Amino acid sequence: MFSEKKIAVLRVRALIIDAARCWLNQNGYVEVQGPIILPAIGDQPASFEVKYFDKKGYLTQGLQPYAHSFVSNLGKVFTIAPAFRSEKMRTRRHLTEYWRIQVAQQCRFDDIIKVQEKLITHVCQILSANAADALHLLNISTDALRVKTPFPILTYDAAIELLQRDGFGVWWGQNFDWGMENHISLSFGQPFFITRFPVNAETYFHRSDPEKPELSLSADVLAPQGYGEIGSSGEIITEKEALSQKMIEENIDVAGQRWYLRHMECNSSPQSGFALGLERLIQWICRLADVKEAVAFPRVYDSDLL
Amino acid sequence: MFSEKKIAVLRVRALIIDAARCWLNQNGYVEVQGPIILPAIGDQPASFEVKYFDKKGYLTQGLQPYAHSFVSNLGKVFTIAPAFRSEKMRTRRHLTEYWRIQVAQQCRFDDIIKVQEKLITHVCQILSANAADALHLLNISTDALRVKTPFPILTYDAAIELLQRDGFGVWWGQNFDWGMENHISLSFGQPFFITRFPVNAETYFHRSDPEKPELSLSADVLAPQGYGEIGSSGEIITEKEALSQKMIEENIDVAGQRWYLRHMECNSSPQSGFALGLERLIQWICRLADVKEAVAFPRVYDSDLL
Repeated sequence: MFSEKKIAVLRVRALIIDAARCWLNQNGYVEVQGPIILPAIGDQPASFEVKYFDKKGYLTQGLQPYAHSFVSNLGKVFTIAPAFRSEKMRTRRHLTEYWRIQVAQQCRFDDIIKVQEKLITHVCQILSANAADALHLLNISTDALRVKTPFPILTYDAAIELLQRDGFGVWWGQNFDWGMENHISLSFGQPFFITRFPVNAETYFHRSDPEKPELSLSADVLAPQGYGEIGSSGEIITEKEALSQKMIEENIDVAGQRWYLRHMECNSSPQSGFALGLERLIQWICRLADVKEAVAFPRVYDSDLL
Repeated sequence: MFSEKKIAVLRVRALIIDAARCWLNQNGYVEVQGPIILPAIGDQPASFEVKYFDKKGYLTQGLQPYAHSFVSNLGKVFTIAPAFRSEKMRTRRHLTEYWRIQVAQQCRFDDIIKVQEKLITHVCQILSANAADALHLLNISTDALRVKTPFPILTYDAAIELLQRDGFGVWWGQNFDWGMENHISLSFGQPFFITRFPVNAETYFHRSDPEKPELSLSADVLAPQGYGEIGSSGEIITEKEALSQKMIEENIDVAGQRWYLRHMECNSSPQSGFALGLERLIQWICRLADVKEAVAFPRVYDSDLL
């Protein structure tokens, strides 16, 4: 049998999904499903290989590049679906198999982070109102879920300054490791953004800031109190040639590019999107020490499939 | 760009999912997610192999055996999630990757088919009320979705008689091939059940009818007008020893059994469940010639991953 705590977490999990989906449906987003088995992107996909008849496939890491086709054809879209990562990470924050709330629409970067903060705020409000019993069992007061918009925004540059001031040996251009992310997150009392990461530290499909081309129009959203990153967002490159150029810079082979770029033919309106890691959101909301506790049958590196 | 028809189908798809989920939430079902990467069940799993670090995994074919743990701990549950099948089928009815609406709860066989027919009926009603535009684009009148409960029930024995009468060379104990399924389905004007299949023609985890042990407490639900099977249901064996015995009869090796049986420890109350193939439900509702048309980026045998 599951513990009383696990049952409460799984009930909160169901309420979070329902709250997110209701908000998205009510705000005109169409629910879509991308494929799970994908061709390879690049030489060493960070996901698991699948024996797909006589071909190699890879388990999806998210809705790209299909998000682009969906947005061009259906407008504002979202998906709640499994995604996979095969990094050999032994932490309390990494699942190899997780669920992802992903949103995509035609809009600019500044607008997509507004959507993301509204969605998170709505989920917290609904839980405060409807999940009092389960939260009480987890020793969480509904006050702990009080969240205000707009979320605080820390630029990447300001985050670097903060870390250097506090004695971290970090230089501009570097990605934050867990210690740094944790440290920054401890100084906030509610979810917040870190924005405008250096282009080289970000996924290749993010657009550069036209005013400062060394920065990308991307953000991480972090949970406070030491929980750290729960999602990311950004404006996407929609011009085929610019994207192809970025893929060459990332050493993605021509075959991988060709498949990917096929999905980018529809239009070149601005497009942005975000993803939330469902289990990390649950980990913060339920104040769980390990992300494994956010899922009934967790899949992590170095443990058996059970 | 997608065709106008494809866009209409994808909008109907989103409405079907939403209608099903709302009904399940309103009727006290808790939404759950089982794992996607599973250990092997038996020697030749009918699903795709995944290179999971240094282990072999297989993509899920449905919520068993996890459904059992979920029901024991959470009561009535459902999931809407991807599932996989690796048969080399070139038909207009088989996807290798499809989405599955699956329900499980503590109840007897006769009660679970009542739940299944209520859910299908609700989905059809909501579509008639809310999807008139998309259905009109697909040349479907809302009358075509008029469904009455209780659904007609044809026993397997009666289906055999019907087929023999109509000249099919079929004997008792055989599974129906597509020609037979299609023929039976053409004589109905709304969804209906075929119940009580021979034990040997069914999945090993279904319970036998106590009054006629050669029959299993299982059913297929079929769409009318030649569309055929869209889902199945049944009462599950919950006693560990009886299930182990059935697994031995099906030549499932001890290692595969051990993992599976671990999930059956919680209780032995009666348990039943059903699954609906989302794309097959869409294929019937949208009157599509090929199930591929029910999904944005279909995965079928013998086609490239795109």
